[in-house]
Amino acid sequence: MPAMGEFWAVVPAGGAGTRLWPLSRGSNPKFLLDLTGSGRTLLQATVDRLAPLVADRVLVVTGTSHAAAVRRQLPGLSAAHVLAEPAPRDSMAAIGLGAAILEHEHPEAVLGSFAADQVIADEAAWRTCVTEAVAVAEDGLLVTIGIEPRGPSTGFGYIRGGERLADFDTAVRVQEFVEKPDADRAAAYVASRSYRWNAGMFVVRASVLLDLLDEEHPELAVGLRRIASDPALLDSVWPALEKIAIDHAVAEPAAAAGRVAMVPGSFGWDDIGDFDSLARLLPCSGGTPMRVLGDAGLVLAEDATGLVVPAGGRTIVLLGVDDVVVVDTGDALLVSTLEKAQRVKEVVARLNQDGRDDLT
Amino acid sequence: MPAMGEFWAVVPAGGAGTRLWPLSRGSNPKFLLDLTGSGRTLLQATVDRLAPLVADRVLVVTGTSHAAAVRRQLPGLSAAHVLAEPAPRDSMAAIGLGAAILEHEHPEAVLGSFAADQVIADEAAWRTCVTEAVAVAEDGLLVTIGIEPRGPSTGFGYIRGGERLADFDTAVRVQEFVEKPDADRAAAYVASRSYRWNAGMFVVRASVLLDLLDEEHPELAVGLRRIASDPALLDSVWPALEKIAIDHAVAEPAAAAGRVAMVPGSFGWDDIGDFDSLARLLPCSGGTPMRVLGDAGLVLAEDATGLVVPAGGRTIVLLGVDDVVVVDTGDALLVSTLEKAQRVKEVVARLNQDGRDDLT
Repeated sequence: MPAMGEFWAVVPAGGAGTRLWPLSRGSNPKFLLDLTGSGRTLLQATVDRLAPLVADRVLVVTGTSHAAAVRRQLPGLSAAHVLAEPAPRDSMAAIGLGAAILEHEHPEAVLGSFAADQVIADEAAWRTCVTEAVAVAEDGLLVTIGIEPRGPSTGFGYIRGGERLADFDTAVRVQEFVEKPDADRAAAYVASRSYRWNAGMFVVRASVLLDLLDEEHPELAVGLRRIASDPALLDSVWPALEKIAIDHAVAEPAAAAGRVAMVPGSFGWDDIGDFDSLARLLPCSGGTPMRVLGDAGLVLAEDATGLVVPAGGRTIVLLGVDDVVVVDTGDALLVSTLEKAQRVKEVVARLNQDGRDDLT
Repeated sequence: MPAMGEFWAVVPAGGAGTRLWPLSRGSNPKFLLDLTGSGRTLLQATVDRLAPLVADRVLVVTGTSHAAAVRRQLPGLSAAHVLAEPAPRDSMAAIGLGAAILEHEHPEAVLGSFAADQVIADEAAWRTCVTEAVAVAEDGLLVTIGIEPRGPSTGFGYIRGGERLADFDTAVRVQEFVEKPDADRAAAYVASRSYRWNAGMFVVRASVLLDLLDEEHPELAVGLRRIASDPALLDSVWPALEKIAIDHAVAEPAAAAGRVAMVPGSFGWDDIGDFDSLARLLPCSGGTPMRVLGDAGLVLAEDATGLVVPAGGRTIVLLGVDDVVVVDTGDALLVSTLEKAQRVKEVVARLNQDGRDDLT
């Protein structure tokens, strides 16, 4: 068993709030919402899921505009464990900030990065994977958790696994990270059984992560370490940091150097990237084929299928519509289909263009 | 020219408010709404359309619960010209009440019954028909205006015309009134060119109408004439009156006796019986194929067709939906299609069953 007492979670809590508009907004992104009807928001569920592994050893990294809401939703977490980014600087800076603070205060710390807006069905299976990943990370590798593909999605990056690592149950060496593929390549990846989805779950010693970063993007590593040793520098140093994803900054070059491992995971993962995905996560309502997020008493469905979110308090009647998406909020209403609702980002862009950022 | 100074309009203003729910309600039926975007409600447009023929010689017959709203919408009309029925007793009692009051106060009066929730495109053509109908009615016949069918509808009763009447431009003798037909018979009717739609427009001397009624339903005629001679009897006599449509009570037997004429009319008529009909009446919005009733600035349609009514003040985004019907109000939202929205009456019935008459 690894020394879990040195294991910390870094939870990036960001997002533009465009893919589930008008349910999510820039001011009210996905992670602040209860999208499963469980009574817990995605952020709260993420921290709940981590608790058996890390107790209160959690750092949430979020935008300044969301820090107050994050603290409100996590009253059990010390306010100092909520790190507010002065501006979005992509995942490397966000996770790297957590890593630098941990390295400074707990030099032996192993960190795991777990985004605040993901859903996991089998939490015990997930924790088993993470526990193995921590053990592998203690050996100095960058470890990722490879998600079993549900299908040949073109919406995710893939990880190609290689030979098994000795001394571990399931971990393999990572051959490469590949960008979101086209449909043909995605199908080939899934058929080969060597590729898994990259969900951005990384487990690594804080100092290893920063050392890897220092090899590829030294100014970024130096900046993060300066902030960690003197938090008063945050506002002056942060804006100049390079905006780059952790995959490009560290994971891809480290994989090429044979320094990345993958623990394959099969635990029912979803990032609720669109309304179709949200609909799949929700149970059918009252024996009807309609999925309802919220008060099913507000919904009357007659000869209708799809997803309805009655968040505006109004009674909603769905009559003779198939695979519909209806999201009702106080100031905006979306009517679309499970297939077409993927384009809602375009609508949000158009609203912003039209000066309607009060709605986005 | 007939003596139009003796011509009065009787405007039945009733309806359950179910066919355009949630836009129309029991408490806010169709005739009180502006459904054409003209700035005038259907009731107001009906009275406007009549003004060149009758000036202020208009009696509106409506339910007690709507009398105040009717008077508010028609400030130019004497309050005494708005007759409040203590309870709905179908069209014979409503029009008959107007007829009895006219007969009592203006024994020579000719009345025309024109429902408050119909739309007419070519008002001049309609007035020409009505003027001819008045002339025919002065000869003692019951005259109906036969609407040119837009197609083989099964939603209307039909009128079969016969030989031309001497001395008039277009009027014919009516052979029979027929009930709403099945699809095959409707097609045959329309193909024959002898049949026209019955829109309930009757023009007749008040005394002739009551005498015809007296032959078939003497108690009803006596009751109405008693109320006319002593309005204080309204509340005691009205509830016992027979509930019957004017077509069954008078028009059908009179036609069988050769006492009904028809003036054929081609003036673009609609009773806005469903959302499909409403959509056809509205122009497309801003170069898009979307019909909007209300503030088009609240609607963003992307790859969408159909009808949207943004009456709830919210911004409505329609994305990738065809022939959709979206009616947004403060407390209820309908999402359906132009085809399926015809079944909205069933939904209203179900809401009433569920005790949700606050919404209907």
